[in-house]
Amino acid sequence: MLRVEPGRVWVKSDQLATEEPLEIRLLASSQAEPGLGKTLTVTMRTPGHDFELAAGFLLAEGLVNEREGIRRIAYCTDPGQPQQYNVVMVELNSQPDLAPLKRHFHTTSACGVCGKASLENLQRHYAPLDSSWKVSRSVIAQLPAQLRAQQTQFALTGGLHAAALFDRGGNLLALREDVGRHNALDKLLGWALLENRLPLSQHILLVSGRASYELAQKALAAGVPVLCAISAPSSLAVALAQAFNLTLIGFLRESFNVYSGAERLELAAAFEL
Amino acid sequence: MLRVEPGRVWVKSDQLATEEPLEIRLLASSQAEPGLGKTLTVTMRTPGHDFELAAGFLLAEGLVNEREGIRRIAYCTDPGQPQQYNVVMVELNSQPDLAPLKRHFHTTSACGVCGKASLENLQRHYAPLDSSWKVSRSVIAQLPAQLRAQQTQFALTGGLHAAALFDRGGNLLALREDVGRHNALDKLLGWALLENRLPLSQHILLVSGRASYELAQKALAAGVPVLCAISAPSSLAVALAQAFNLTLIGFLRESFNVYSGAERLELAAAFEL
Repeated sequence: MLRVEPGRVWVKSDQLATEEPLEIRLLASSQAEPGLGKTLTVTMRTPGHDFELAAGFLLAEGLVNEREGIRRIAYCTDPGQPQQYNVVMVELNSQPDLAPLKRHFHTTSACGVCGKASLENLQRHYAPLDSSWKVSRSVIAQLPAQLRAQQTQFALTGGLHAAALFDRGGNLLALREDVGRHNALDKLLGWALLENRLPLSQHILLVSGRASYELAQKALAAGVPVLCAISAPSSLAVALAQAFNLTLIGFLRESFNVYSGAERLELAAAFEL
Repeated sequence: MLRVEPGRVWVKSDQLATEEPLEIRLLASSQAEPGLGKTLTVTMRTPGHDFELAAGFLLAEGLVNEREGIRRIAYCTDPGQPQQYNVVMVELNSQPDLAPLKRHFHTTSACGVCGKASLENLQRHYAPLDSSWKVSRSVIAQLPAQLRAQQTQFALTGGLHAAALFDRGGNLLALREDVGRHNALDKLLGWALLENRLPLSQHILLVSGRASYELAQKALAAGVPVLCAISAPSSLAVALAQAFNLTLIGFLRESFNVYSGAERLELAAAFEL
């Protein structure tokens, strides 16, 4: 690349965040013909942790909610398949209900209900989070430093989002990076699913960017009661968090904003000087 | 919300970036039955400029490439439709080819070609950009200040992406904001399409975040020869830019990096002190 500065131009090499398409295909175990698969999604992702990404995507879409739901995850290794490390096949132990996925797909319906089914699919139901443990301000405030220290790819490229999982004490358990923030969170939660750690009722999530509705939805799908974001939440993320008793923290620095579920914060500790 | 600082906690009100689902439905003019529509996508967006968003989405997906392709855009106003301002219907003047859209949808195919069709759909073909005008370093370097000055919603919420269109002289023509960076760019390019300004061969695009493959693809779809990003590009965005002669600039500040198409920069000017 060419580096252009006031008064100076030179050729320089640069590390780029890698982005490649990943196709996730579903192979339900009850299908009679092996070799038949359904494309669930094609996502632009940073290669690596692809099986976790697929597992996390299925979790977020409501197709699995525990390790036992997945029989097998593998790259598509058909001869002649030119993209074999960009196609992941997931085989489930039971036939999934694909109705919640319809919003991704091409459907035809009468306009009298136009939009209704699709939009209601976004209002999927989760059990409200009922964990009642508390966390101190100081534990929350030190999470970003841990995230930055572990964002090795971001340090090289400046081009990756990250999602990290912590225990109640604020100890980092796992971190995933990706060009897509949804992918980073899918990889992280897919890791937890494959490690048989769900629901994550004693845990804290931190995402490097903004907290959107979809990120809040993924947190709920994994049962995480505390979601922190370095940047701003959206209106719908706050509404979803309030509806399901998710503690939602934004603009996390030494100080931060609590948009929902403040009862999980030890406010006495917050007054320590 | 609750504002938590070291030694201080108080209740405060905050402006949030609004996020709501928008369903884009396609109504081709040749369809015999009025009232039949196809859901193309449901995207989480910031309400406002919804018709532009729909037009820009269709442009980026290759379903239209000029103003005349669109007969009508309207909200779905069926009685009983509870989400009427969250559903946009687009009627085209001719039956579109939906093949490029397949990657969004639920398909079944033999695994022998699994992934191939979907992934090749990502490699859509655009004419290489052949404009040969040049732009100086100083024009590029002053774009971010104009973006920031016009990001009124971001200033309030801290939670919105922006995309802006400039002429060759660096004058701001339009800016759109959204919780989703793809949506911000779709709104901007949809505005240009509806204003009958395509192709944007004498223009410069600036996006507030990172330059991903999909953002580069949208720039190509609108014929913009210069794409600037405040943050990092991805590897595939650079590969696509190089393949189609798109000038791609990243980490744009007073200084910046040129990843592709450096011949559009007046390097003499870059040496000015």
